Amino acid sequence: MIFVSSDKHIFSFGPDLEPVAYAKPGDIICFETLDCFAGQLTSEIQSIANIDLTRANPATGPVFIEGAEPGDTLKIEILDIRVSKTGVVVALPGFGLLGDKLRDERIRICRIEDGFVYCTVKDSSRPVKIRLPYKPMVGVIGVAYSKKVPSTIPGVHGGNMDTKLITRGTAVYLPVFKEGGLLAVGDVHAVMADGEMCATGCEVSGEVVVRVDVIKGCSVQWPIIEAEDAIYIIVSKESLEEAFYEASNAAARAISCSLSLEFEDAYMIAGLIVDLQVSQVVNVVKTVRARIPKEFASITQILEALNNR
Amino acid sequence: MIFVSSDKHIFSFGPDLEPVAYAKPGDIICFETLDCFAGQLTSEIQSIANIDLTRANPATGPVFIEGAEPGDTLKIEILDIRVSKTGVVVALPGFGLLGDKLRDERIRICRIEDGFVYCTVKDSSRPVKIRLPYKPMVGVIGVAYSKKVPSTIPGVHGGNMDTKLITRGTAVYLPVFKEGGLLAVGDVHAVMADGEMCATGCEVSGEVVVRVDVIKGCSVQWPIIEAEDAIYIIVSKESLEEAFYEASNAAARAISCSLSLEFEDAYMIAGLIVDLQVSQVVNVVKTVRARIPKEFASITQILEALNNR
Repeated sequence: MIFVSSDKHIFSFGPDLEPVAYAKPGDIICFETLDCFAGQLTSEIQSIANIDLTRANPATGPVFIEGAEPGDTLKIEILDIRVSKTGVVVALPGFGLLGDKLRDERIRICRIEDGFVYCTVKDSSRPVKIRLPYKPMVGVIGVAYSKKVPSTIPGVHGGNMDTKLITRGTAVYLPVFKEGGLLAVGDVHAVMADGEMCATGCEVSGEVVVRVDVIKGCSVQWPIIEAEDAIYIIVSKESLEEAFYEASNAAARAISCSLSLEFEDAYMIAGLIVDLQVSQVVNVVKTVRARIPKEFASITQILEALNNR
Repeated sequence: MIFVSSDKHIFSFGPDLEPVAYAKPGDIICFETLDCFAGQLTSEIQSIANIDLTRANPATGPVFIEGAEPGDTLKIEILDIRVSKTGVVVALPGFGLLGDKLRDERIRICRIEDGFVYCTVKDSSRPVKIRLPYKPMVGVIGVAYSKKVPSTIPGVHGGNMDTKLITRGTAVYLPVFKEGGLLAVGDVHAVMADGEMCATGCEVSGEVVVRVDVIKGCSVQWPIIEAEDAIYIIVSKESLEEAFYEASNAAARAISCSLSLEFEDAYMIAGLIVDLQVSQVVNVVKTVRARIPKEFASITQILEALNNR
């Protein structure tokens, strides 16, 4: 197994990345990851004003995958996610969907143990310990892109998709823009809800173990996630309307190719079976997904349908 | 059981509705419903240009519920949904998320049998029969509102929420604006995906059997759906951004009340456990939902938190 230490990390997915490790198709890589604040928040009495936000969302890597060339697709199977014993959640005025309603900033340190996340919050008088489900997921996973994109921003190259489906047992497919792909991973959450309304999950450091592969001669237009029973097309755009439009378009085309249907028929069928869902609605660029049940299209068919070549 | 025939229907949820039947709290009502085209589309070779679209989305009723007064909430348990043997799906240029990409209008008549929906569509050469899951749901359920709202439009009063969670085994909570509430139900779908991208589900006529009850002295700000494991706040607004903002605000307030937390803490917890989801993104007004797991708030707590009085 190839181990990539968290001291090797990037803050953007630009064209000039230098690889810090090399892997071959089929290799297993363990990315040691920092949390989204690069470990700067460790106490509930710190002020966010005092931390360096240019160090937000570090992604460990990048790793050069041999044989990956522009026009190919990387397949990244998420084999395991292990997280630190504590995590941090933040509420910050101006931050997240309801940032305008916050009077104070607040930092909560959560404890992860016994398969749960424990967060101690305050009611009017005394501390209350709340038990949340433990559902680890990867916030940032991406490849070098043709222009510089901060690691806080999602896009065609992946990046800060904040999609809770990126978890153990799923595979992520990303288009390759630069030789070697240059894969980097970070921003693990111990738990997060769809939408990420307060703009943080339970932010943790951790280790993400993946198996990488290269699909030659196929370049997906958008990141794809393969889960047990469905395939998701992940679209990030500046507005939710644009994102849903593009996700619907990709899904209707995928149904059209998979079932050999004219576009009008595929669109009707998609309206009946393709769920439109949100991943995150609080970053500068919003991320949504179209869910295609596997009984209507295989991953091979969807990769072919969305091949950009 | 009170039976309301589909020949008694309305096309708007205005203040001047006249009741066509009367029920008491605890009564069971069967609404016989027309499909969203009022039964005008029965063949694949019709043209939508020739049907009367002022007759879109008829809702059967309204039924006067005794004891329901402005400031109360109606509880409507969905006990059963039965649908016709055929349904219709439509793709119409300019209609739905991808209306700009359609060259032709298309009407498909589906057959509902053996627990599935069968839709025969065309590939380049021959007809293909596609088997879809049968998941009946209610598109329109609403009460008389203080101003006239067409039955195609969702809102605080319910209406065309096109939310697939409104199905057997769930309960819908709607605020009462007029004496008797004046409940009407229509627009059943045999199957529809979240988002309803092509702007129709599989549109069917049918029968919706409900039990009604009145919760006195509580007027919810938005429709609420109670399912087995979670409670959903249903928000309709002109833009998706506004809808998600309002749904998040309602959910954070509900968590704040239920767990007795300050708003900042409730917001952080909501970001970890409250999924933001879409119901439909294609009507004039969009409908989204915030999902609150029942382990964090009971229906009683959520009704209290969202009481508008």
